[in-house]
Amino acid sequence: MNYTSGYREREGGKVFFIHHRVRYADTDKMDMVYHGSYIPMLEAGRVDTLREIGWVYEQMEKNGILLPVVDLKLKYLVPARYDQVLRIESHVLERPTARLKFSFSIYQEETRLVQAEVCLAFVDEESGSPTRAPQGLIDSLEENGLIHP
Amino acid sequence: MNYTSGYREREGGKVFFIHHRVRYADTDKMDMVYHGSYIPMLEAGRVDTLREIGWVYEQMEKNGILLPVVDLKLKYLVPARYDQVLRIESHVLERPTARLKFSFSIYQEETRLVQAEVCLAFVDEESGSPTRAPQGLIDSLEENGLIHP
Amino acid sequence: MNYTSGYREREGGKVFFIHHRVRYADTDKMDMVYHGSYIPMLEAGRVDTLREIGWVYEQMEKNGILLPVVDLKLKYLVPARYDQVLRIESHVLERPTARLKFSFSIYQEETRLVQAEVCLAFVDEESGSPTRAPQGLIDSLEENGLIHP
Amino acid sequence: MNYTSGYREREGGKVFFIHHRVRYADTDKMDMVYHGSYIPMLEAGRVDTLREIGWVYEQMEKNGILLPVVDLKLKYLVPARYDQVLRIESHVLERPTARLKFSFSIYQEETRLVQAEVCLAFVDEESGSPTRAPQGLIDSLEENGLIHP
Repeated sequence: MNYTSGYREREGGKVFFIHHRVRYADTDKMDMVYHGSYIPMLEAGRVDTLREIGWVYEQMEKNGILLPVVDLKLKYLVPARYDQVLRIESHVLERPTARLKFSFSIYQEETRLVQAEVCLAFVDEESGSPTRAPQGLIDSLEENGLIHP
Repeated sequence: MNYTSGYREREGGKVFFIHHRVRYADTDKMDMVYHGSYIPMLEAGRVDTLREIGWVYEQMEKNGILLPVVDLKLKYLVPARYDQVLRIESHVLERPTARLKFSFSIYQEETRLVQAEVCLAFVDEESGSPTRAPQGLIDSLEENGLIHP
Repeated sequence: MNYTSGYREREGGKVFFIHHRVRYADTDKMDMVYHGSYIPMLEAGRVDTLREIGWVYEQMEKNGILLPVVDLKLKYLVPARYDQVLRIESHVLERPTARLKFSFSIYQEETRLVQAEVCLAFVDEESGSPTRAPQGLIDSLEENGLIHP
Repeated sequence: MNYTSGYREREGGKVFFIHHRVRYADTDKMDMVYHGSYIPMLEAGRVDTLREIGWVYEQMEKNGILLPVVDLKLKYLVPARYDQVLRIESHVLERPTARLKFSFSIYQEETRLVQAEVCLAFVDEESGSPTRAPQGLIDSLEENGLIHP
């Protein structure tokens, strides 16, 4: 089985999704996914979304822009279970300035399990100071319809 | 070196703290603690706080009460670094009803690195339905001065 | 980008591979994959290999057979780096009896990074005792050419 | 409750131990500690052993010596359970040359749960080449009786 990724139309606009199969490593003794195990799935979701529109995060780093997480919110609606294939949907909430605000929904089939927001800061590696989002990145997000509330 | 725990007076009231030394396992290639690595520290903080006032979570489970996380918020203020000894301070934000709202601050010496809130739900294991916090737990939290905004 | 899986011919026989993209979550401050982060990749490799030949581990569990890991060996040859797409190749070392011995190689393109062996035990859930591998599983592994040293 | 560390006499010689309380984060749906969750415990065990005898790994790194893991072996004897306090005992198997071979036993009270060996390589950070163990480190290990099979 291959784990696909792609775009999907949602009410508010387009989202980009990836898949993740739940592993034993993700679960805890309550027989569900440990609440911390969703964090790397969100990371994978946003990095692959940026890659899809031509912005490889690893390349941004080499160009001296870091993107640390400054703020994280998760709501756990329904537990995910072992071996389920989860679909992580990502989009950006508003036009990035010095910050990049991602919204995520994690689904198992058509059931929404988790809702999350992650805010990242653009930081100039050399100075360690906040910096503005590259204009090209803003344009790519807009052209692909990925910015909406 | 031993990792101690105990109470500490804060402006709003008392908090209970534990310590965690940052491991390679907690770090990422940005040479700081990965943003997801704080989640198990928060878990350790609240479970040891409850243990301190006589409520062993494992025992609550055996008595049929589960406490899944329903909501999580983290703010990352200053990066934690490898080998630092972090102090995780915990208290409860309001008198628990069917929910238990923990507030956490993670410090390295007197620098606050992370601020977090975690909301847990009391769930009756048999029925799977929300249930009220045990009165004894509410009393223990109050007697120990651990409930404050 | 989709993460594919499939068979590949190796000198000793066939292997089944999956892919994993290295995340920040997998790395450590030495700017490489943390040595413990390969463990869930091996888990994913063997579970997907069994699924491919018709043995869904989750179903085996429901049928009362557990497969805990009893023994693990890893050799780290070359560090894996952030954002690399790793290929985890799996096969079985010998005809399973009460144990199932997997061999793994993790590659980045044609460079072998990690070599690993994981031994699992078939355990009857009810009695907690070791049990023999299901004959159908042995047959499936053999028919697919996945058993070789 | 405080988590203590210290020396203990074993048949073959002295070991240094630390404690770790099992968290939900460490467990999996088989209601035991996930086999990969022991890896950070071993890391904590060996780093704290070196610290105890005056060798702070973080300082060694600043002096240009890295210690990546090259080889790892674990045997899982008895499952560890949620909320247990585990004792991780560490010693060194032979006089270090360019490699440092640690042996570990993880106990819950007097029951041995896991036996492990981890081999690390001394690497000169600048050249990336293997290098010899600092003589002072060898001496400290010997003086403290921590080298034995």
